Amino acid sequence: MANSPPPVRILWVNPIGSPDYDQPMGEFMRGIKNADTQINVVSFRAGGPQHLEFRTYEALVIGDIIRAARDAATSGMDAMVIGCFYDPGIEAAREISGSTVVVGPCQAAVQIAGNLANRFSVIVGQNKWIQQMTERVHTYGYGDRLASMQPINIAVPDLQADCEFTARQIIEAGRRAIDEDGAEALILGCTCTFGLFEAVQKELKVPIIDPINAALKMAEALGGMKRQFDWAPSRVGSCLPPPEAEIESWGLLPAGAGIGNRYQVV
Amino acid sequence: MANSPPPVRILWVNPIGSPDYDQPMGEFMRGIKNADTQINVVSFRAGGPQHLEFRTYEALVIGDIIRAARDAATSGMDAMVIGCFYDPGIEAAREISGSTVVVGPCQAAVQIAGNLANRFSVIVGQNKWIQQMTERVHTYGYGDRLASMQPINIAVPDLQADCEFTARQIIEAGRRAIDEDGAEALILGCTCTFGLFEAVQKELKVPIIDPINAALKMAEALGGMKRQFDWAPSRVGSCLPPPEAEIESWGLLPAGAGIGNRYQVV
Amino acid sequence: MANSPPPVRILWVNPIGSPDYDQPMGEFMRGIKNADTQINVVSFRAGGPQHLEFRTYEALVIGDIIRAARDAATSGMDAMVIGCFYDPGIEAAREISGSTVVVGPCQAAVQIAGNLANRFSVIVGQNKWIQQMTERVHTYGYGDRLASMQPINIAVPDLQADCEFTARQIIEAGRRAIDEDGAEALILGCTCTFGLFEAVQKELKVPIIDPINAALKMAEALGGMKRQFDWAPSRVGSCLPPPEAEIESWGLLPAGAGIGNRYQVV
Amino acid sequence: MANSPPPVRILWVNPIGSPDYDQPMGEFMRGIKNADTQINVVSFRAGGPQHLEFRTYEALVIGDIIRAARDAATSGMDAMVIGCFYDPGIEAAREISGSTVVVGPCQAAVQIAGNLANRFSVIVGQNKWIQQMTERVHTYGYGDRLASMQPINIAVPDLQADCEFTARQIIEAGRRAIDEDGAEALILGCTCTFGLFEAVQKELKVPIIDPINAALKMAEALGGMKRQFDWAPSRVGSCLPPPEAEIESWGLLPAGAGIGNRYQVV
Amino acid sequence: MANSPPPVRILWVNPIGSPDYDQPMGEFMRGIKNADTQINVVSFRAGGPQHLEFRTYEALVIGDIIRAARDAATSGMDAMVIGCFYDPGIEAAREISGSTVVVGPCQAAVQIAGNLANRFSVIVGQNKWIQQMTERVHTYGYGDRLASMQPINIAVPDLQADCEFTARQIIEAGRRAIDEDGAEALILGCTCTFGLFEAVQKELKVPIIDPINAALKMAEALGGMKRQFDWAPSRVGSCLPPPEAEIESWGLLPAGAGIGNRYQVV
Amino acid sequence: MANSPPPVRILWVNPIGSPDYDQPMGEFMRGIKNADTQINVVSFRAGGPQHLEFRTYEALVIGDIIRAARDAATSGMDAMVIGCFYDPGIEAAREISGSTVVVGPCQAAVQIAGNLANRFSVIVGQNKWIQQMTERVHTYGYGDRLASMQPINIAVPDLQADCEFTARQIIEAGRRAIDEDGAEALILGCTCTFGLFEAVQKELKVPIIDPINAALKMAEALGGMKRQFDWAPSRVGSCLPPPEAEIESWGLLPAGAGIGNRYQVV
Repeated sequence: MANSPPPVRILWVNPIGSPDYDQPMGEFMRGIKNADTQINVVSFRAGGPQHLEFRTYEALVIGDIIRAARDAATSGMDAMVIGCFYDPGIEAAREISGSTVVVGPCQAAVQIAGNLANRFSVIVGQNKWIQQMTERVHTYGYGDRLASMQPINIAVPDLQADCEFTARQIIEAGRRAIDEDGAEALILGCTCTFGLFEAVQKELKVPIIDPINAALKMAEALGGMKRQFDWAPSRVGSCLPPPEAEIESWGLLPAGAGIGNRYQVV
Repeated sequence: MANSPPPVRILWVNPIGSPDYDQPMGEFMRGIKNADTQINVVSFRAGGPQHLEFRTYEALVIGDIIRAARDAATSGMDAMVIGCFYDPGIEAAREISGSTVVVGPCQAAVQIAGNLANRFSVIVGQNKWIQQMTERVHTYGYGDRLASMQPINIAVPDLQADCEFTARQIIEAGRRAIDEDGAEALILGCTCTFGLFEAVQKELKVPIIDPINAALKMAEALGGMKRQFDWAPSRVGSCLPPPEAEIESWGLLPAGAGIGNRYQVV
Repeated sequence: MANSPPPVRILWVNPIGSPDYDQPMGEFMRGIKNADTQINVVSFRAGGPQHLEFRTYEALVIGDIIRAARDAATSGMDAMVIGCFYDPGIEAAREISGSTVVVGPCQAAVQIAGNLANRFSVIVGQNKWIQQMTERVHTYGYGDRLASMQPINIAVPDLQADCEFTARQIIEAGRRAIDEDGAEALILGCTCTFGLFEAVQKELKVPIIDPINAALKMAEALGGMKRQFDWAPSRVGSCLPPPEAEIESWGLLPAGAGIGNRYQVV
Repeated sequence: MANSPPPVRILWVNPIGSPDYDQPMGEFMRGIKNADTQINVVSFRAGGPQHLEFRTYEALVIGDIIRAARDAATSGMDAMVIGCFYDPGIEAAREISGSTVVVGPCQAAVQIAGNLANRFSVIVGQNKWIQQMTERVHTYGYGDRLASMQPINIAVPDLQADCEFTARQIIEAGRRAIDEDGAEALILGCTCTFGLFEAVQKELKVPIIDPINAALKMAEALGGMKRQFDWAPSRVGSCLPPPEAEIESWGLLPAGAGIGNRYQVV
Repeated sequence: MANSPPPVRILWVNPIGSPDYDQPMGEFMRGIKNADTQINVVSFRAGGPQHLEFRTYEALVIGDIIRAARDAATSGMDAMVIGCFYDPGIEAAREISGSTVVVGPCQAAVQIAGNLANRFSVIVGQNKWIQQMTERVHTYGYGDRLASMQPINIAVPDLQADCEFTARQIIEAGRRAIDEDGAEALILGCTCTFGLFEAVQKELKVPIIDPINAALKMAEALGGMKRQFDWAPSRVGSCLPPPEAEIESWGLLPAGAGIGNRYQVV
Repeated sequence: MANSPPPVRILWVNPIGSPDYDQPMGEFMRGIKNADTQINVVSFRAGGPQHLEFRTYEALVIGDIIRAARDAATSGMDAMVIGCFYDPGIEAAREISGSTVVVGPCQAAVQIAGNLANRFSVIVGQNKWIQQMTERVHTYGYGDRLASMQPINIAVPDLQADCEFTARQIIEAGRRAIDEDGAEALILGCTCTFGLFEAVQKELKVPIIDPINAALKMAEALGGMKRQFDWAPSRVGSCLPPPEAEIESWGLLPAGAGIGNRYQVV
């Protein structure tokens, strides 16, 4: 068991068919990662959805997410993050990720919040998201702690359009969550609001969990444990991966398939 | 409201990259469908998984399932069946299916069983399936009625290899479920065991729900209600579909994409 | 396995001590049943409750419901419907119904809604009903999908008094359910509102499930499966019926007992 | 608020169509009741079921149970016990019981056990009972504490045939519950095993809750609180009783109807 | 089995570091106890918290609660009540209480309410209490019956300052619970509101369960059953107490330790 | 937001009245901590329990745990670990810990396991632990993932007596959990088995989560997030701490009280 903080290697997947977020997110993460963490930000080939506000869009990228998980496995990544708060395809990615730990921003956020507050709310963009995200939170076991889902009525593509406006809407929705629903912490329910949590936290004075920060830090922690203690994903029972012979004979997961852009953060 | 049994049109999707099951399943269904039901059996282009025993494989076909749902919507199908007991992609397919009702064999089977018995077991091929199928049954609200999952230790590709052997294994596992777990009805947890339920039922003397029979009959019933009462999928709240403008501008769902083979049953 | 749609025979029980609803409901069902379905509408002898808005009233007719289930069993009915949204006595009726499938309007409605929407509300007549119906919906496993119960503050005997008024109240309550509670489909929580769903559906543009339509169509579907696949109620475990010897020696279920009126719909 | 232990009046209903158990149960209760408690043991007219091992039988006596509850209300009983471990018709009886508190042996037993142990098992006569009793225990909120249901394979009419044999079977089943299922207390799941708990308790050295003892003592306690604190059943919300005008005009609940035998214990 | 109402001996613990409530509570209980019940009211040594509105305060007295439970065990008490609606330390006290039954006001209140109403609300002093008390109610299995928690915004030390004001606030909050949340009975969520329930009950006309009355009466009832039927706490499984040898060798539970004041009510 | 891995300060509490484990655990942690993490290992004054296998013992140390949490708050610790798998007093400690994040080994372990496997089992020392630990796992929301609790029948004081024997028992119990219960990962349910997980993991080839490793790494991660993002415990709603004025005037939490031994790991 090594003692120095292991230089963890992370694959961060922006699961959309556009490279536009890769560099800004990468830059943002450069500012918060541990000194020696290496992050590989990738997105998919053009031609796919450019956000995942609908189940249809998630379904159309989920194949590429699995291909990215395979890429993480074969390139020896310690952890991989599926960079969307719906954690799309996380169960399947965990099956095929080899010894790479797969982290979802939603699961990371609720686990952290579960250490800081007895009840929390999630700030969502639109009503549309509520049922699916509620189900996710329940799947992870945190349904009893969910005070509410509070919408700000902004679509994903507009979240970064006027950051000040978005922040104001979050603060208002957050205040409703605290005052009316009994929330004690807030989770921002989209990876596209990165950079805003500090202003909100200053104003509302409860922990504001940003899913990018949460996912990156949990990826560093779990990636480190994998390095130190060999705590890699289980491969028995329901975690059994498909046989390599089948994958090969059907030609299912050619190397590098799906990935359209790579941005390195060292 | 029409009074004669409406001639329901059904899209049956074999969600694998092989046309091999299309004709045998179609022929089987010809023998059990209502006289005037029209069934369009489709499978996907070659190059994809040939069974869905792993989450990875499901993830790789889920995009094509959505494309098939779009096809059902634009070609005016009354109902569509996702022909796999995992009901892969059912929530997403329901979002994009227009006015086509989407039916899953697992959901159809538990709903029927819920009218015939207080507790039931599911016969599964392998241990690997248990956790995911258990979760499905819980998602549909039938977890409290689930007596057990009983495996027969046969992989999907081998289920139809020696039907007599498979039937014997099902009978044995079913007897365990009845005697030890308190099952009062059995559900066969794979669409690849079609044709076997009657022999098992004769032997065990409890209702044996075959998922193909179940899904087809529920598709006929729900497709008929859609015709008569306009009971099509909801399109508000979490059922809101993506905007057509985005779909078009990103070129996401070209007509007929994904489908590799069609077999007509009239 | 026959291929033509089997001519299903259904016993429809209006579980009250008055024949007043038998003909109007029968006529209504004549307009929506499959061409060759045969429906036998029955009600109980005079002297019993004339609606079931209270548990006390249900308790007073439940013996007759069981006698009707026995009647269905001995007269070879394929399916029986207990024509009240509380589904009173459904578990007991299923025990004694022989090979007749027993259908409840509430269970039928939630199963159909579960294929069309992720969340639904039930429109109830009065606050009084809410706790008991909520429990029913939970018993069937659909509690997680229940957005709300919305009352219209009309007692059962008045529901058909001024249909236009009732419809307007339903539309208003339904709109609240959709806008405030996140309902994506509505279920009308009383069999006495028959004939109203279409106007409501036209106005609110989400699926409006009428329990009579729902129960009749599920009875046709399940009755048909019973004919084709021998999927009759289980008779083992908790589904074990009482011994015939005891029934006979105690004189418990004399033929035809309880039924006061019959109305045939062919 | 009176200070002396109030002389509580209890209606004990043996909900079967036979007076055979009235005197022996009455005598048994005479030996365990508080000095000044008055117990009125009643059973129903001949012609009904003589035990309630099947849902069908319960359904056939539930009307009489409601009539007995009405009798309790009009004759000023402080508490009424429905003398069967299924607690048949308890919700309906509570609606029509006026200011009489209605006690069920199953609910009384689980509430007492919940003060004495973290987990308990129920000893049942036959497998047939398990699903329904499990549901009851869950309805009362004690599902998480239920270690198991252990059957002794004796039908109700035979439980008192050879008491020593029955006791030995209970001890054996109880030992399995303790050793294999983690039970810390046992509940005897039938009111027909009265008189046996002490021998079993001596042998197994965990609390053995007899449902008659439990129900009588809770009836005395709750009846006393009703006397002292006016804690009678709620009559609002779902506890609203039917209007007297309807009951009268339909002639539903004539005085004394249903009761076939009375045995007084003073 | 004795037949006369057994003279039950109860240890009532006011779990705070002040004797101030001992006499007033004792006097209050003298007015409502059974004639021959003996109550020993105790509180803890000075220097500890004087109310338990915070988890921190509970944690600081929980050691003394256990010492009091030991005292109850060694002095042959039939029942012990932990006189705070949070029921602090109840699971631990039950482990070490020997043959003394341990009663909590919250558990007693929900068990009684569960016999009188289908849904109830709890009136709490402040928002702060809601999460913890909700969890308690769920732990006891009554979460499905909980209509709401309604705060009156009064801190514990002020509850008895102006009783009329407190009562008015309770009536207002109770009315909200009944009208808006569907409560059918109310539980007063603090042992410091003793003496007020009757005025509230008169006004709101639903059962108002005072936790002191509830706990005392359940202690009398359960203490009596212990006397008559030997229904003492289980001592197997998770109820296994620590070995006496360890307790002695570590000097953990010296006689009388912790208790600061005693007030006898005969 | 600092970029270099922040030098996190952790208070590790061995919640027993003996310093015996402080140095060995400290040495063990020195080998696995991040290079610049500072750990302060403390235990309590002599005279208290020396292990926490019973609820009674936990209750007797919970006051000192709260005093340690206060110590952590006032000495500016980033995180505090309650070094026992029962996570005793964690909710109370989180209330009074100021801006120190409180970590429990059980919660840390299930959160990590939830990223590596769909189902896991906990290896416990004795049957006695099962009910309480099961409840803990459910409280944290991981009950649905709990495959089983498997006991090795060794008391806490003997766990480190013959480490090879303990490891062999763990391997055997773990194999049962994997083969019979469907566990995909294992959690060691006691902090006293430290040092053994690697041998077990090598043998069983599934992730073996040691609670000390898990708690330390989560404390480093959460402590780091507190440093970087100000994600400290919420202080609103149910997380509101007691007023300082009361603490002071009652003299409740004198500095350093409770702590008996300190061992520094730098």
